[in-house]
Amino acid sequence: MADNPFSMPLDEAMMTQRAIRRLLPDPVDDALVLKLIELALRAPTGSNAQNWEFIVVKDAAVKAKLAKLNRQAWNVYGGIGRRLAERDGDETMKRIIKAVQWQADHFEEVPVIVVACIKTFIPWFPPIAATSAYGSIYPSVQNLLLAARAANLGAALITLPLWSRFRAQRALGLPLSIAPCAVIPLGWPKGKYGPTTRRPVGEVVSLDRYGHRPFA
Amino acid sequence: MADNPFSMPLDEAMMTQRAIRRLLPDPVDDALVLKLIELALRAPTGSNAQNWEFIVVKDAAVKAKLAKLNRQAWNVYGGIGRRLAERDGDETMKRIIKAVQWQADHFEEVPVIVVACIKTFIPWFPPIAATSAYGSIYPSVQNLLLAARAANLGAALITLPLWSRFRAQRALGLPLSIAPCAVIPLGWPKGKYGPTTRRPVGEVVSLDRYGHRPFA
Repeated sequence: MADNPFSMPLDEAMMTQRAIRRLLPDPVDDALVLKLIELALRAPTGSNAQNWEFIVVKDAAVKAKLAKLNRQAWNVYGGIGRRLAERDGDETMKRIIKAVQWQADHFEEVPVIVVACIKTFIPWFPPIAATSAYGSIYPSVQNLLLAARAANLGAALITLPLWSRFRAQRALGLPLSIAPCAVIPLGWPKGKYGPTTRRPVGEVVSLDRYGHRPFA
Repeated sequence: MADNPFSMPLDEAMMTQRAIRRLLPDPVDDALVLKLIELALRAPTGSNAQNWEFIVVKDAAVKAKLAKLNRQAWNVYGGIGRRLAERDGDETMKRIIKAVQWQADHFEEVPVIVVACIKTFIPWFPPIAATSAYGSIYPSVQNLLLAARAANLGAALITLPLWSRFRAQRALGLPLSIAPCAVIPLGWPKGKYGPTTRRPVGEVVSLDRYGHRPFA
């Protein structure tokens, strides 16, 4: 990195961010991973508590545990997804499923896996407690993904390895008081970043009351 | 906006993002708000479902309902926070509390309030369902906050007006199947953006297992 890749224009980073699941096994410098996390730490947290923890997984034995958890969940969800995609003839979904399958098959080869965690008890009621907790970790995850995109490092946001919070905690040596929330496999991409497509903004924006869509 | 403010370097936007709660009552162009949401929509969602809804609140009657909900929650949490901050002599927390108090007192004057919602049922078990749902809305919220920072528009991420999901849904005309997750009051700032401080990255990063901190 001769130049600073993180000076990429904000809108370019956002417009070309996509999940990159097919990764090369080549190593990624610790300094680069730490830089991504440093930028992640600039995101807001509730009451500025900064109550996050990031586990950087490079050890083969820990990776194997996460890979196993990922495959257990994918064996269930992937089968359902594949049937739905076939039924609906949904080509986009079929492409996603192929990429997730590739990721499941090659999980052990991913050079670095970051697990973003939150140090807080997340009660199931009231819902404001859950949204406040997750709202203190996912903004940082998005910073990390945008920074990865700027550095041309492949990344994706997944949750399948966390289907059992307890088993994920055990794999990572986490106490029960720290909840793993998101998993981000990182590596140099086989594919490349590029523009994404989205529904028009007017279709998902209401003015004042849900369903009033003057911008559509 | 003669130039494109969203071409701000990614790292500059991240390093200078902070919650701006004291806002001027001056109007904000709909086109600018829609542009922020357009960039928000570039964030990832689980299975690329794009199952989000954004309510842009400008109507005084709807704002008043959100303001009331916000004050109800703040009357409880704010009192607790103030006592803790006094007890600990925590000056940073006292400053945050004063800003949140200002926001509660002037909520009706905020020109635009965006409420980010997710169209999905969020069961309370297993936890992976919750993290997957919130992981499909908070990355977009962070894009919106970064875009607001680039445009020099004041913004903050709050959840207090959602202390009762049901009352928030009623205020916004939302069906029970759409969960409001985050509230972002937007307006031209009285204060200004600037560098933030954070704990060093090595203190929140573990390698392979929680608590192994070679980067500290």
